[in-house]
Amino acid sequence: MLTLYGMTDSGNCYKPRLLLAKLGRPFRHVEVSTLDGGTRSADYLAKNPNGKVPLLEFEDGRTLAESNAILLHLAEGTRFLPADAYQRALAYQWLFFEQYSHEPQIAVRRSLVKYPHLAAFATEERMAALLDGGNRALAVMEQRLGAAPFFAGETLSVADVALYAYTHDAATAGFELARFPFVSAWLSRVASDESHVEIGWKPA
Amino acid sequence: MLTLYGMTDSGNCYKPRLLLAKLGRPFRHVEVSTLDGGTRSADYLAKNPNGKVPLLEFEDGRTLAESNAILLHLAEGTRFLPADAYQRALAYQWLFFEQYSHEPQIAVRRSLVKYPHLAAFATEERMAALLDGGNRALAVMEQRLGAAPFFAGETLSVADVALYAYTHDAATAGFELARFPFVSAWLSRVASDESHVEIGWKPA
Repeated sequence: MLTLYGMTDSGNCYKPRLLLAKLGRPFRHVEVSTLDGGTRSADYLAKNPNGKVPLLEFEDGRTLAESNAILLHLAEGTRFLPADAYQRALAYQWLFFEQYSHEPQIAVRRSLVKYPHLAAFATEERMAALLDGGNRALAVMEQRLGAAPFFAGETLSVADVALYAYTHDAATAGFELARFPFVSAWLSRVASDESHVEIGWKPA
Repeated sequence: MLTLYGMTDSGNCYKPRLLLAKLGRPFRHVEVSTLDGGTRSADYLAKNPNGKVPLLEFEDGRTLAESNAILLHLAEGTRFLPADAYQRALAYQWLFFEQYSHEPQIAVRRSLVKYPHLAAFATEERMAALLDGGNRALAVMEQRLGAAPFFAGETLSVADVALYAYTHDAATAGFELARFPFVSAWLSRVASDESHVEIGWKPA
């Protein structure tokens, strides 16, 4: 059985849980947290030298890091990775957009709001810059979702799974989603797709 | 013919040029710069609402953004994307590592060193943090390259193309590559692979 090392509350760790739930693939969840040094322990660094979660471990002990790489790997040959080469390329595009232009703004701001021990890093200047950067990312998403129901086109793909993870909780990070009606409608579409699970979900 | 919008001096824009050269695929280069407002012009934003380079344009006018998404798309069905599912997953992993843990440290520090108009952002504190973050990324790469000749395994893949782009010029950014002998040997391996071109190369 697959083992997924991750932190329940992390959007990056929610991504593979959401996809595995949608695929109906059984897996074991092992909680490893960035908050208590779990990701920096010697045992964990032996599994992932980059010291981040999530990490997928296969039955034979081989491992795979990076949330969006885990999504792509799990999605191959399923409805979550488009069969059309251009739509698949768009899925790639939005996965990289998510990690470069979205997550470092919206997820980082969420952490600074949410975790008291990070409050010293939440300077007024930094919080304003993250709000600005996150709103720019949401505006780019708004434009795309005014033209297509999902990021790669007509059907839900890994790109939607990845972007849903932190966008659905952007209010916690201080963003006003009501300003982005196409994004808001897309959030509802993703949440109503079959076998959806919320961020706190873990296998029984 | 393919058109590639990009900035000659940008590592992100070098990545698709290097892969296209290795594939022997003809393309047209159009210079668009982040330094003179080119990426923020109305015409360019109509092509890429995220206002970044590189951007690949197909003959029918459709576009694809994000350097590593362009690499994945162009590499499908070639020797640069492993046929083995796990090795391909590792290529994905290192592509996301490059955009999240490497480029925002090493490429950003290179820009702050290289472009005089950015000097105001190059505070002592920021430069030290970027040096630290970049050295952490290089240490993760060093560990991997002590175990395998290339990032996805035995053969050169898109992951190597992506990571070569800014690593080969990390000295400009202030990094001491001599501290990372496996990384240094890998740089030589990549540069000696067939049809290699340097960062300044553009099609005739």
